[in-house]
Amino acid sequence: MGAVPAAYLAAAEQAAAISGAVIRPLFRSALLVEAKGDASPVTAADKGAERAIREFLAKTLPQHGIWGEEYGPERVDAEWVWVLDPIDGTRAFVTGRPLFGTLIALLHKGVPVLGIIDQPVTRERWTGVSGEATRFVSPMGGQPRCRPCARLAEAELSCTAPDLFAEGDRPRFDRLRRAARRVTWGGDCYGYGLIALGLVDIIAESGLKPWDWAALVPVIEGAGGRVTDWTGAPLQLGAAGDVLAVGDPALQAEAIALLR
Amino acid sequence: MGAVPAAYLAAAEQAAAISGAVIRPLFRSALLVEAKGDASPVTAADKGAERAIREFLAKTLPQHGIWGEEYGPERVDAEWVWVLDPIDGTRAFVTGRPLFGTLIALLHKGVPVLGIIDQPVTRERWTGVSGEATRFVSPMGGQPRCRPCARLAEAELSCTAPDLFAEGDRPRFDRLRRAARRVTWGGDCYGYGLIALGLVDIIAESGLKPWDWAALVPVIEGAGGRVTDWTGAPLQLGAAGDVLAVGDPALQAEAIALLR
Repeated sequence: MGAVPAAYLAAAEQAAAISGAVIRPLFRSALLVEAKGDASPVTAADKGAERAIREFLAKTLPQHGIWGEEYGPERVDAEWVWVLDPIDGTRAFVTGRPLFGTLIALLHKGVPVLGIIDQPVTRERWTGVSGEATRFVSPMGGQPRCRPCARLAEAELSCTAPDLFAEGDRPRFDRLRRAARRVTWGGDCYGYGLIALGLVDIIAESGLKPWDWAALVPVIEGAGGRVTDWTGAPLQLGAAGDVLAVGDPALQAEAIALLR
Repeated sequence: MGAVPAAYLAAAEQAAAISGAVIRPLFRSALLVEAKGDASPVTAADKGAERAIREFLAKTLPQHGIWGEEYGPERVDAEWVWVLDPIDGTRAFVTGRPLFGTLIALLHKGVPVLGIIDQPVTRERWTGVSGEATRFVSPMGGQPRCRPCARLAEAELSCTAPDLFAEGDRPRFDRLRRAARRVTWGGDCYGYGLIALGLVDIIAESGLKPWDWAALVPVIEGAGGRVTDWTGAPLQLGAAGDVLAVGDPALQAEAIALLR
């Protein structure tokens, strides 16, 4: 898929910084407290951040396409397309947990070649570029390298919430969950970041949108892991969004057999 | 229950600082990654921090009792007894989520009169003293004041994990969960801290030990909330540890009726 131009990587990092500056003042704001978990303040943060990123990208790389959760697709037949979700993990944001994240992906001819998971409040950032080792900055420590874990019986499984599966997917996920060593709950994109830090071994979720998963692929694969659908095939833009992420590629076959 | 001497409050803050210094270097450490979620590194952090706190308290306030999760009870018939859990949320710690916490409580004649929830990695600290307004310091913002929320249908419910309930308690919890507006998962003591910030409205958990709940009582009550057992009675050291925490005391009656 070729190298990602340095200017695009710089734009991605800049977009994350711009988005973070919009989101930070709204985290745990009085507005949020007064709204009793209402959708409106988080939507304000989400929309405000996406507008800011879009303005920046339109000015900096006007020939590129943009596809964001809040404002939809624009020039998505372009060679390079940005896929954005300023607040992945709205429930975490609304309840004041610093485990939501800003997801910024760059697709080249439909394939994610650059991904950023940015946590604007803890100021942590995972940056993945295809063909390169994932980078991670955090005041809380951690190394961007998946750990070996070839057997589900030894694997730490993470999942955002037990109620996020479509009806037919839940029994399939439950087989995987029972075979795993342990399950921890919560985390949205942050859980995928923990795979890239070698602290979680596997995540299987269903119904994810491209802006939920596109940024995760370069981050996890650049740390030695693998991200596919539940059959082991590469994730596709138009497909169902069943995501299987593993830190150790050797874990994949056992997981796929249980998710069938 | 009388005022808490300033020297005891200073000792509690100092104990939290001492514990944090032991825990921080072990969070996301190579040791943890290599152990694939094994209990040993977290136990090392837990035990190391408790030993450090105990040494400090034994030197500073030798007449006081101490009861910690790792090293058991000592002089617990004393007028003042410290109740400690250096790492509440071991699964969060093991998977690299900064939502575990250090819990330090001081009991006067069996009643929690001082409580600290300390997050040593994000450097957040809730400090509650009975009869005083709860204090909160965090680089991520937030105000220590529960929000009004008198009806479950409007309430944000938080729960550490769906599998932490005793067999008989699960159907009772499920009635509460279905009546709530929404549920978010994960968080251990951090979730209780979010009640004190007005971002979560209710938590009901069962089987908690005194070191899990003692520190939470002064923190939440000093922010305007209420912490009791599932019948609305004050929590007792020897009792079952069914904990019901609400940000708005008006929410209690509806919750108790469903948890019966």
